[in-house]
Amino acid sequence: MQVDFSNQTTLRVRYGETDQMGYSYYGNYAEYFEVGRVEALREIGMSYKSLEAHGVMLPVSEMHVHYKTPAKYDDALNIETRIVEIKGARISFNYTIRNEEDAIVATGSTILVFVSKETMRPIQPPKVFTDVIEKYYV
Amino acid sequence: MQVDFSNQTTLRVRYGETDQMGYSYYGNYAEYFEVGRVEALREIGMSYKSLEAHGVMLPVSEMHVHYKTPAKYDDALNIETRIVEIKGARISFNYTIRNEEDAIVATGSTILVFVSKETMRPIQPPKVFTDVIEKYYV
Amino acid sequence: MQVDFSNQTTLRVRYGETDQMGYSYYGNYAEYFEVGRVEALREIGMSYKSLEAHGVMLPVSEMHVHYKTPAKYDDALNIETRIVEIKGARISFNYTIRNEEDAIVATGSTILVFVSKETMRPIQPPKVFTDVIEKYYV
Amino acid sequence: MQVDFSNQTTLRVRYGETDQMGYSYYGNYAEYFEVGRVEALREIGMSYKSLEAHGVMLPVSEMHVHYKTPAKYDDALNIETRIVEIKGARISFNYTIRNEEDAIVATGSTILVFVSKETMRPIQPPKVFTDVIEKYYV
Repeated sequence: MQVDFSNQTTLRVRYGETDQMGYSYYGNYAEYFEVGRVEALREIGMSYKSLEAHGVMLPVSEMHVHYKTPAKYDDALNIETRIVEIKGARISFNYTIRNEEDAIVATGSTILVFVSKETMRPIQPPKVFTDVIEKYYV
Repeated sequence: MQVDFSNQTTLRVRYGETDQMGYSYYGNYAEYFEVGRVEALREIGMSYKSLEAHGVMLPVSEMHVHYKTPAKYDDALNIETRIVEIKGARISFNYTIRNEEDAIVATGSTILVFVSKETMRPIQPPKVFTDVIEKYYV
Repeated sequence: MQVDFSNQTTLRVRYGETDQMGYSYYGNYAEYFEVGRVEALREIGMSYKSLEAHGVMLPVSEMHVHYKTPAKYDDALNIETRIVEIKGARISFNYTIRNEEDAIVATGSTILVFVSKETMRPIQPPKVFTDVIEKYYV
Repeated sequence: MQVDFSNQTTLRVRYGETDQMGYSYYGNYAEYFEVGRVEALREIGMSYKSLEAHGVMLPVSEMHVHYKTPAKYDDALNIETRIVEIKGARISFNYTIRNEEDAIVATGSTILVFVSKETMRPIQPPKVFTDVIEKYYV
């Protein structure tokens, strides 16, 4: 299913996230994407924590990042997260990170897989999740 | 230029790198790739540290990761890093991470850009670097 | 000088911060303390970023942490930061981190040193800083 | 019991571990101490991984760090870890980190607690552990 849902959230670049170039280290963006993803799921009404409580894990199977403008210490970054597709056991998210001057810092995407904690095998998205997301199907 | 150079290095998954799924967090792979890249450059004879001392930075402009098999705490991971291409100001690396059973944990790639510390603009790879890498041009 | 100033700020435990015990890894608390410290300085009116812009760095010389109750994924932690003393080139902060049930997650302290970026030597706190903090001297 | 056992291990400061001061971020030392601790336990013959497999966790209850000389990118750090005491459910480690010029980068200590995974309560060190460490009692 194609999905049309987006969430905006904000975080500040921490000092420990900078590197000696003076920029936020490129490895931090996976965590920034995760913050966006977690807030998107929370807004939909099915937090990632509840999903795990329902016996479902969502490991990441692919990540792509395009770095555009360096993020600097103490920048307040806006993370826009779009849920774009659910297909079989897979769910796709796109991300756009902007700084306070509205310049694009990075864009990216991830594909995650619904996995049963019990069997450790991919599964269809659980009903508790499709119940809350189906209103965003397009 | 197409390049044919590869390096193998090993690292152990640290406890702090695991998450509550019991796997190495997906955001750590950027750092694992960097460890591989740094050792590849060191083996070629031009460490990343020397590059910076020559006024050249190498920020990452793209990263792609495919996660195959979870890495677990204390796994000794083998990182194979291939330098595959230098084109204008850009240099491309491919990575394959394997565990002790020789299963593929992840594959990925990054594109980095040679940037002058003085002007902060993309530049051709400096002569000190092409001098050591040109023997691997194919 | 003894100082009496405190700030409260909140952060959420990120998934990548958990470890396979299911708790926020003990190494993250340095970063949590830093978030508290940065917000305390911002509230006083002299952000850490401005301090660096004035040629002053604040490296940490000591840290002490007592871990009381594990913090878990998605917990919203309250960080209370107290500036307690400025003595020569040194400034001391105390921290108390609480979870949503108001249980104490951790307490700790850090001592930081005012250092000139130019000489890399310890210096007295700069006037731009004492101007804003002296109203909290006790 | 007082214990007299020490282990030496080495690690390289990663680029992502530096901050914009150009030093390894102060929060990384918890992870450096953990690397030392893990190698000390491995040398004794009871890896931390085996301990967890025996149903025992070792959360940290206290950490103290004194930062002496900044560690820089690509520095090969020597971590000396001493197991100093086992008292009730608690085990104490001391650490000294040195750089390639043999300057002391940091010293520190941690206290960890043996905890049953089943009951989540502190327990006496398990026999599999005391069997291997008792030869170092003093």
